[in-house]
Amino acid sequence: MIYDDMENRITKLFGIEHPIVAGGMVWCSGWRLAAAVSNAGGLGLLGAGSMHPEVLREHIQKCKAATDKPFGVNFPLMYPEPEAVLQILAEEGVKIVFTSAGSPKKYTGWLHDHGMKVAHVVSSSLFAQKCEAAGVDAVVAEGFEAGGHNGREETTTMCLVPAVRRATSLPLLAAGGIASGRAMLAARALGAEGVQIGTRFALTQESSASEAYKQLGLSLQEGDTRLLLHKLAPTRLAKSTFKSKVEEMEAAGASADELRAFLGKGRAKLGIFEGNLEEGELEIGQVASQLNGRPIQTVAEVMNELLAEYSEALGELD
Amino acid sequence: MIYDDMENRITKLFGIEHPIVAGGMVWCSGWRLAAAVSNAGGLGLLGAGSMHPEVLREHIQKCKAATDKPFGVNFPLMYPEPEAVLQILAEEGVKIVFTSAGSPKKYTGWLHDHGMKVAHVVSSSLFAQKCEAAGVDAVVAEGFEAGGHNGREETTTMCLVPAVRRATSLPLLAAGGIASGRAMLAARALGAEGVQIGTRFALTQESSASEAYKQLGLSLQEGDTRLLLHKLAPTRLAKSTFKSKVEEMEAAGASADELRAFLGKGRAKLGIFEGNLEEGELEIGQVASQLNGRPIQTVAEVMNELLAEYSEALGELD
Repeated sequence: MIYDDMENRITKLFGIEHPIVAGGMVWCSGWRLAAAVSNAGGLGLLGAGSMHPEVLREHIQKCKAATDKPFGVNFPLMYPEPEAVLQILAEEGVKIVFTSAGSPKKYTGWLHDHGMKVAHVVSSSLFAQKCEAAGVDAVVAEGFEAGGHNGREETTTMCLVPAVRRATSLPLLAAGGIASGRAMLAARALGAEGVQIGTRFALTQESSASEAYKQLGLSLQEGDTRLLLHKLAPTRLAKSTFKSKVEEMEAAGASADELRAFLGKGRAKLGIFEGNLEEGELEIGQVASQLNGRPIQTVAEVMNELLAEYSEALGELD
Repeated sequence: MIYDDMENRITKLFGIEHPIVAGGMVWCSGWRLAAAVSNAGGLGLLGAGSMHPEVLREHIQKCKAATDKPFGVNFPLMYPEPEAVLQILAEEGVKIVFTSAGSPKKYTGWLHDHGMKVAHVVSSSLFAQKCEAAGVDAVVAEGFEAGGHNGREETTTMCLVPAVRRATSLPLLAAGGIASGRAMLAARALGAEGVQIGTRFALTQESSASEAYKQLGLSLQEGDTRLLLHKLAPTRLAKSTFKSKVEEMEAAGASADELRAFLGKGRAKLGIFEGNLEEGELEIGQVASQLNGRPIQTVAEVMNELLAEYSEALGELD
């Protein structure tokens, strides 16, 4: 239905109906969310970044049982035991892997040899060119407004997508700031063939995030998220006591070591999964404020809205 | 031709052919640039921010002599002698004023009483609502990627435009990250009825910026601009010795007073107008890297490209 009017390399590559990928988000993207997105005609991803290898295996198996549609796994390459994950991906017959936070040269060949399609997330057109050289099948151009880990160059989706489009000939997904059919149409105007959506799906019923995180996410105002932790890995965070403290420390010139010590371990789990809105690390995209006041929707409701809104916006251009 | 297929409140409001406004940029937007944009069917603005009142009067008079099309003046409300500017705007019969950097309540009534249309530049939907309450005629939603002075909330064009569209019913221009017909179409998909373009026009032959600034602007890579001076007024700057020093100071926790002392006076003139690429303040948008390698074009060439590219991108959606 959507994008039916263009030759769509993304839907063909992944064997899906709509070129809408749900980002594989830490502490949100378990089998329930991934299967629901895939069952609704998009591409659901499991977020391996917050799973021990055997937990990932369990989620893959449950996802296979919950959908007969294609789904994938997001695999951050800075994962502490990458070989264990690779082995599970192969053993479980995973067909689609989205890699991020590392060099696309590292595992793309191996993943291809084991029958998997590979997309890689980038924040610059230079890295997109490295993806093309590494033989990656598709690229996700993720802008400054995206939640969670982010690029150092702070290039926004509006600037990044056309740059990546020009720099490579790869199938291209836009990410960052996209939570509506209008933004999907804007991404297409900029040259993307599909979108990866994070925040909107992180706040659905099927997301494994805590109720508290979802309620907070649906009550944010403009300006309530900020890209912080610049001296470690830049990360977009929602307001919390933790965020305020990081802002204070950064404004006062705190070093990477001081920030690392303050961050400690397990902050994202504490915030997103356990719902500690004071001390937890609440990764979320800038676009959350557009969802202010909504209920916690199902994935099916979100997908229907996105598709209807896209068609309506496209119709207005005629 | 462009946007002919939609009811366009922007073109009607300003009496122009295409809903493309050239931002009134300090040290770039003199009468040559403003008149050229207006003669090409857009709306040229004079940048009062870098003009003494009597210099502004001279530019208004020269602009009137150079075009019989509508043009306007950008008037930053933090201007040191606002009353002198207001008097000149009235005496010279200026019909269109874009205000920024201050409260729209302050002068909108006065400007209306003197026969002027008023647009106001905002970086949040809250301020857009204040504009509507103040009786402003149109609003410019300018995102994080824009050059020069910027909002504190760091909301990108992709996130800001839909938010402002929802928050007010005012005619809406999108700004920040727009240097192509594709981005103009994306802005329209997001709900804007036109665009304000800065960087692309700052780098034309008719811009009063120095040749050195233009050459630098056309040689930037992704990541070569950064939003800095957070503790004063956040400003997007291109790479220079000055920028590197500000980055170092901010990373080390420099105070507003320390930054102000280092900034001193006249840095923007030194950089943009006099072409000192080391010590000058080089205000420019993130989108500059998309123009890398281009020649210094005329305004007419830029307008023709924008319109052709917009039509082509729109055609691809059919």
